[in-house]
Amino acid sequence: MLSMLIAQPQTMYFEAPLTTQSGASIRGYSLTYETYGRLNADRSNAVLICHALNASHHVAGVYAGQPGTEGWWDNMIGPGKPVDTDKFYVIGVNNLGSCFGSTGPMHVNPDTGKVYGADFPVVTVEDWVNAQARLLDKLGIGQLAAVMGGSLGGMQALSWTLQYPERMRYAVVIASAPNLNAENIAFNEVARRAIVTDPDFHGGHFYEHGVIPKRGLRIARMIGHITYLSDDVMNEKFGRELRGAVDGAVRSGYQYSTQDIEFQIESYLRYQGDKFSDYFDANTYLLITRALDYFDPARQHGGDLTAALATARCKFLLVSFSTDWRFSPERSREIVKGLLDNRRDVSYAEIDAPHGHDAFLLDDPRYLGVVRSYFNNMAREPRT
Amino acid sequence: MLSMLIAQPQTMYFEAPLTTQSGASIRGYSLTYETYGRLNADRSNAVLICHALNASHHVAGVYAGQPGTEGWWDNMIGPGKPVDTDKFYVIGVNNLGSCFGSTGPMHVNPDTGKVYGADFPVVTVEDWVNAQARLLDKLGIGQLAAVMGGSLGGMQALSWTLQYPERMRYAVVIASAPNLNAENIAFNEVARRAIVTDPDFHGGHFYEHGVIPKRGLRIARMIGHITYLSDDVMNEKFGRELRGAVDGAVRSGYQYSTQDIEFQIESYLRYQGDKFSDYFDANTYLLITRALDYFDPARQHGGDLTAALATARCKFLLVSFSTDWRFSPERSREIVKGLLDNRRDVSYAEIDAPHGHDAFLLDDPRYLGVVRSYFNNMAREPRT
Repeated sequence: MLSMLIAQPQTMYFEAPLTTQSGASIRGYSLTYETYGRLNADRSNAVLICHALNASHHVAGVYAGQPGTEGWWDNMIGPGKPVDTDKFYVIGVNNLGSCFGSTGPMHVNPDTGKVYGADFPVVTVEDWVNAQARLLDKLGIGQLAAVMGGSLGGMQALSWTLQYPERMRYAVVIASAPNLNAENIAFNEVARRAIVTDPDFHGGHFYEHGVIPKRGLRIARMIGHITYLSDDVMNEKFGRELRGAVDGAVRSGYQYSTQDIEFQIESYLRYQGDKFSDYFDANTYLLITRALDYFDPARQHGGDLTAALATARCKFLLVSFSTDWRFSPERSREIVKGLLDNRRDVSYAEIDAPHGHDAFLLDDPRYLGVVRSYFNNMAREPRT
Repeated sequence: MLSMLIAQPQTMYFEAPLTTQSGASIRGYSLTYETYGRLNADRSNAVLICHALNASHHVAGVYAGQPGTEGWWDNMIGPGKPVDTDKFYVIGVNNLGSCFGSTGPMHVNPDTGKVYGADFPVVTVEDWVNAQARLLDKLGIGQLAAVMGGSLGGMQALSWTLQYPERMRYAVVIASAPNLNAENIAFNEVARRAIVTDPDFHGGHFYEHGVIPKRGLRIARMIGHITYLSDDVMNEKFGRELRGAVDGAVRSGYQYSTQDIEFQIESYLRYQGDKFSDYFDANTYLLITRALDYFDPARQHGGDLTAALATARCKFLLVSFSTDWRFSPERSREIVKGLLDNRRDVSYAEIDAPHGHDAFLLDDPRYLGVVRSYFNNMAREPRT
């Protein structure tokens, strides 16, 4: 039996200003984080987990006395799990601009005494990595065993290897991409427009009006969910099955309505949208989707990804999923090729999974097995 | 040189009520239509064109003295074109519930004396076909040479062959599907929610408030456009190219803004959304996307498409496009298989085209060539 991991969020305060890529300066900010396992004597077993759009520092374990509060990657990280907290000291950190604890749009700008709202500086993947590096400094961790993330988290892991190439021995980049393509940006843009044009958005200063642009957030989340799932898994889970709008009962005949729920897939999307609009911040959504749009390490090298990746020094594991059409295997292969061009040590697993982009969060045994093996080897490797 | 085709919209009034699948009754309605070419002496050369979501009866030609008013399938239909109006008498008809001329939500319900608005009955592909059949009755056309359509228009063409199997000799079904899958319905649902939750929608009775739910229409159209284009063509046309929000100039550096236009693809989508919201009716959008959702001829046969298609008698041409992910070639092949199971005469062309779903409207020479050959053979065939 696995022992129960109890998570405990912590906060680190940073007085010194962080200069963002956009040229702004954020000072007096906090990062919320959690750690699992124990840092070993030579401080060499730390693993940093970077989160994606909708997640947070709460990566693994549960909060004491609160069942059902498992972290978003609890199937991956914990005692005896693929990233084994009996061997590794794992750090989850919430990014700047988020709405789950670290300083973000809902907090007060110390320079003005007012809530940031839409004035929170536009932050990039590179800015997040810089902020995370400062956290590691304060935790006394010079070099990570590994930096790891999926999706947008994978972009941060990749960026770590370019911004701080000597600060990790391994990088694990899952279901990610070297940049967004036009279609990815397009979906983000529609979601942002839905939020920004919601009359309750008030130019991003809705807090002071006591309202929330829930209509926009719902639409944004519905669009997101479509892109997280594969066509096949949607057909398998929902197909064209009908659902009653009133009693939730499965029906066999059409109601002929344009506004009521007719199909199960509609019910699912509305539910996801409603739930999301209850807890996610609209300004955070704009910031995080923009960070996705902007990430493009090849850009400073005239689009040459191989040149961009020349800085990396660590060993890499990349994983992609066959039915992921948001960040397709092809995009991971671009990174693999760029690293191989630079003669880096790269492992790559393309997992045949039906679940689309969401697969990186799910319990696919082959996927979890690949990560487990990689970390097992890492734990056994003599450190020089 | 091709002769210039001058189009002239006409209106046919129907006093007798049309009973819809939903059980409603629409009476005193009009259909707007156009015809091109001449009906021959034995009334055997008529081709009915069914339109998709955003189109109308104005299929071919231009309006007199109005350059730039080409019909939506003007590359396909006209003198000397693949569907040659020197040989065929082509009819374009606007569907019930549309906002381009035929009776729809913006018109007055003769039973109440009030504008229909959201109370316009939910219409289905089958209802449209029934209404189109009545138009043919009035035009004195017993049997069509062919019924033809792309996308949702292809669904109508297919439904014609099942509802009125003796009334056509050929059916041409392009970039279509035997029903929507869960992902298709999901995109429609997000678009509808964007419209319905726009505060200016007023439950579908926005006309009387003197407003238009433009925010919702813009979002709906942006989502639509993403699904009409292939990933590849989006990357080729827009990629990650930047665009200035103010002067429209192409830039090389990021502006770091969550609300301004940064990328060309954003500019394109916003433009398409704005344009659409200026001319398309919100209630019509709901009705037409619902007609798409509901179409499913196999449904009455326990999901057995072969059984559903057993009624069809005519010969078929189906065309699909390799990069169409809205209605993929696989979906056309399902129809082909169902027809072959019934020993129907089926031609099928899978065109290797980069443009995604939009390809059915574009000038691909192989595609236009296939249609041209098919109609040439049709024109030569002795009629029995």
